[in-house]
Amino acid sequence: MSLDLAAIRAAHDRIRPYIVRTPVLASERLDAASGAALFFKCENLQHIGAFKARGATNAVFALPPDEAARGVCTHSSGNHAAALARAAKLRGIAATIVMPANTPAVKVRNVERFGARIVLCAPTARAREETCARIVAETGARLIHPFTNYDVMAGQGTAALELLADVPALDLVLCPVGGGGLLSGTAVAVKALQPQTRVIAVEPAGAADAAQSFRAGEVRPVAQVDTIADGLRTTIGEENLALVRRHVDDIVTVSDAEIVAAMRELWEALRVVVEPSGAVPFAAVRAGLIPVQQRRVGIILSGGNVDLDALPWMRK
Amino acid sequence: MSLDLAAIRAAHDRIRPYIVRTPVLASERLDAASGAALFFKCENLQHIGAFKARGATNAVFALPPDEAARGVCTHSSGNHAAALARAAKLRGIAATIVMPANTPAVKVRNVERFGARIVLCAPTARAREETCARIVAETGARLIHPFTNYDVMAGQGTAALELLADVPALDLVLCPVGGGGLLSGTAVAVKALQPQTRVIAVEPAGAADAAQSFRAGEVRPVAQVDTIADGLRTTIGEENLALVRRHVDDIVTVSDAEIVAAMRELWEALRVVVEPSGAVPFAAVRAGLIPVQQRRVGIILSGGNVDLDALPWMRK
Repeated sequence: MSLDLAAIRAAHDRIRPYIVRTPVLASERLDAASGAALFFKCENLQHIGAFKARGATNAVFALPPDEAARGVCTHSSGNHAAALARAAKLRGIAATIVMPANTPAVKVRNVERFGARIVLCAPTARAREETCARIVAETGARLIHPFTNYDVMAGQGTAALELLADVPALDLVLCPVGGGGLLSGTAVAVKALQPQTRVIAVEPAGAADAAQSFRAGEVRPVAQVDTIADGLRTTIGEENLALVRRHVDDIVTVSDAEIVAAMRELWEALRVVVEPSGAVPFAAVRAGLIPVQQRRVGIILSGGNVDLDALPWMRK
Repeated sequence: MSLDLAAIRAAHDRIRPYIVRTPVLASERLDAASGAALFFKCENLQHIGAFKARGATNAVFALPPDEAARGVCTHSSGNHAAALARAAKLRGIAATIVMPANTPAVKVRNVERFGARIVLCAPTARAREETCARIVAETGARLIHPFTNYDVMAGQGTAALELLADVPALDLVLCPVGGGGLLSGTAVAVKALQPQTRVIAVEPAGAADAAQSFRAGEVRPVAQVDTIADGLRTTIGEENLALVRRHVDDIVTVSDAEIVAAMRELWEALRVVVEPSGAVPFAAVRAGLIPVQQRRVGIILSGGNVDLDALPWMRK
């Protein structure tokens, strides 16, 4: 199994009743500052505040009835968890969510709201996976992986489908990369529909596993992950890297200072709430790391879940 | 001269190339909490971050060429100023903006960006008007009043036109009231198109001149205005009160604490940046002051210009 345009189109037909067709916003101020025409696909305005609603909903509704009846489970730093909990509720099946104990309160509330069962674990990849495996063994639930699952990737790719339908003739599409689910779906959709459009991924410098894996040709995790962009701390999946190497033109990295400055500028200029991970692609534009002058640039604002009591520009 | 649906439709045709057709957002979380279906017309995502772009653009482009050539001027606490500066720049004419010296920095920058001439004055209604009158006398510029001008009101009414076109069968439309420009346009549009839809205005308790004027039948200013909603501190205009008394069903008031709580909840649930004035109608829903259960409710989010260094929930 892999990922192609047909799967992304089928996902779109499947999830359309359950997701927001998010608006594409522009800003005269940001266009003037960058010399480009920037089109922001606002997945922060998606249900649960992130594109993750697309992939999880597709994966849940793609399950055959007998499998669905045993429920779903996942491990996630937050947005995929809320997305899966919501999708399970919409389908009327059980969801169990394994979350690291240090997950921000706002993200825990976003899961509880949908009636999912929450199991806390130590904040390590190993603890998450072991806890998940135990739940699968006990309940027969289907593990819906946040980014290596092809139905999830197909769902994430539907944001790019809508962006290309709403904004003609993009020269460039920018996308953040963490595990690589959104990037896989985006790149496959864009290259199938408009091969001449460049797809560039952006990653925090403090979690640059995708950039180094992209160049090395194999997954190379980062020893010490350190970035404010909590949605992008994950190591890219093998399945995702294979797709990314085939369909993505380049991966660039940005510092946390650039991410915070970009986040704040998006709040001021677009008047939307963007989380640090969502501001990462614009950070690369703002820092001059990607040539955009005179270009039409699609930018995926991936999410908007932040703790309003701990904004990075607040005085401590 | 007065205001009718034909004028609002003509305004929409005139300004369409220069404004954003803003999205209408909804939130499963806010619907569940209120028991209603809430539809937020996001004028905070309008150019210059407020509905004021509509009215100012209509007024500027409605001027005959010989009048336009002498320029425009206004006094404003911010959003109308930025809107007029932008509209004048789009038409290629001069704009002079009289602003109180205590205007927040973010609003001053929003005017400077469009190349308007800024004249600071004392923060009193009298100083603003006198300064404006002097500029009109010196330059022949046309004063574009922020809310008593009928072309401005017609432009503001176009947001409601779009809302009714995008969301069928609203039972209720909620709108903030300060000077009454947005409310006049909104009420005239809604009652002309759907007379059975109720229009309710919401006002800060600390600036409840419109509520008391509505009941008294004449303009009754408040002696000591005290509210965080800086866009709604103005006294309602006579022209506006006449329209409001004819077309608005009721005016309710909310406390500043309710406004801040509503603002924060909108940021979290809708993931958009709303200024205190823009959160005022939802504050009335959230506080249970307007019966909305089982109803379809349109809410105009009027603006999103806030100082991100001085959010009301930040520790001092």
